[in-house]
Amino acid sequence: MKHFSLNDIHEMPHLYKINLINSCSGYKSANLIGTKSKSGISNVAIFSSVTHIGSDPALLGFFLRPNTVIRNTYDNIKETGYYTINHVHKSILTDAHHTSAKYDKSISEFDVTLLEEDYKKGYHMPFVKHAPVQIAMKYHEEYRIKANDTILLIGEIKDVFLDEHLLEPDGFVNLSKAQIATINGLDAYAIPHENIRLEYQRPKR
Amino acid sequence: MKHFSLNDIHEMPHLYKINLINSCSGYKSANLIGTKSKSGISNVAIFSSVTHIGSDPALLGFFLRPNTVIRNTYDNIKETGYYTINHVHKSILTDAHHTSAKYDKSISEFDVTLLEEDYKKGYHMPFVKHAPVQIAMKYHEEYRIKANDTILLIGEIKDVFLDEHLLEPDGFVNLSKAQIATINGLDAYAIPHENIRLEYQRPKR
Repeated sequence: MKHFSLNDIHEMPHLYKINLINSCSGYKSANLIGTKSKSGISNVAIFSSVTHIGSDPALLGFFLRPNTVIRNTYDNIKETGYYTINHVHKSILTDAHHTSAKYDKSISEFDVTLLEEDYKKGYHMPFVKHAPVQIAMKYHEEYRIKANDTILLIGEIKDVFLDEHLLEPDGFVNLSKAQIATINGLDAYAIPHENIRLEYQRPKR
Repeated sequence: MKHFSLNDIHEMPHLYKINLINSCSGYKSANLIGTKSKSGISNVAIFSSVTHIGSDPALLGFFLRPNTVIRNTYDNIKETGYYTINHVHKSILTDAHHTSAKYDKSISEFDVTLLEEDYKKGYHMPFVKHAPVQIAMKYHEEYRIKANDTILLIGEIKDVFLDEHLLEPDGFVNLSKAQIATINGLDAYAIPHENIRLEYQRPKR
């Protein structure tokens, strides 16, 4: 096996290091987070760190890295309290990835990509049209990670919209039926095509 | 589209709710976390919440849900300061999933599954033998999430071991070459077979 020690990691060129460390932890979710500023400018940006925090209350968290973006997403959430989480379908991969480009706050990524805004009753922030799963989120709380000044932002699920054929009788959302992407590292996208479900496990006697 | 409001979610049967909320956020990583108590009992448990926190220093975090496990993993990390993160290969799916069963602290999951312990120089905690990626972690810091008493535990990468053929010339670890699993919800595993890498994005002129 190839071995990298902490010293090796310290001495790697920057790009090699961020590729290795971002890809070695495993597959990540692929989500477009939609927001709108108080002044009415939409924003949509791709994130790979959305994580389940709890089911009751229904909470999802994600990490914002202070150095990597002009933080429109964070600023809009703090201004308005709301955001959307939308899944990346195979057909919008290229445009979804382009939202990682650092645009000024005055420019909406919806205007420079083929991604389309979708509005739902009761909400002023945009969902991403045709996303197979769209979730309306309300800001709940945040934590500043001392080690590197990253922010963990936690929100509560207010509404879930999903393509009906993904939903199984027991509430399971079958992502593999929807050609939804998963992220490997900084820039690689994979589309899992099938899955197997295993039973709830109890200790062996 | 199917729509679930916050009220609908509140009123769902427990199992339906945890299936829906755990599967609606997107694909998750599949990792076996290995630890050993001071008294020498090994533990290995599956987690789907390992997330990249930063590359320099190289930090990974994961969430521990207080109600779901007899918290051997957490207790061992707090006792010893060290743990391992190992990727779940297709061939060990069933045994990896079985580690979600609630075993008493006196029982090692390595003794009740076909998973094998692997020890490396300088570390007393077990890696998982034959895992295509094995990472030695040192405890760094933790945060208690007020909303539901979940713990975010952050560690620093000390050593990375990986199958050499997964490593691309720019440091990218190509998980799809290794039949590594991703998790959908509580109990579904998918194996992505290929990926596409997209370029670093800059604003369009």
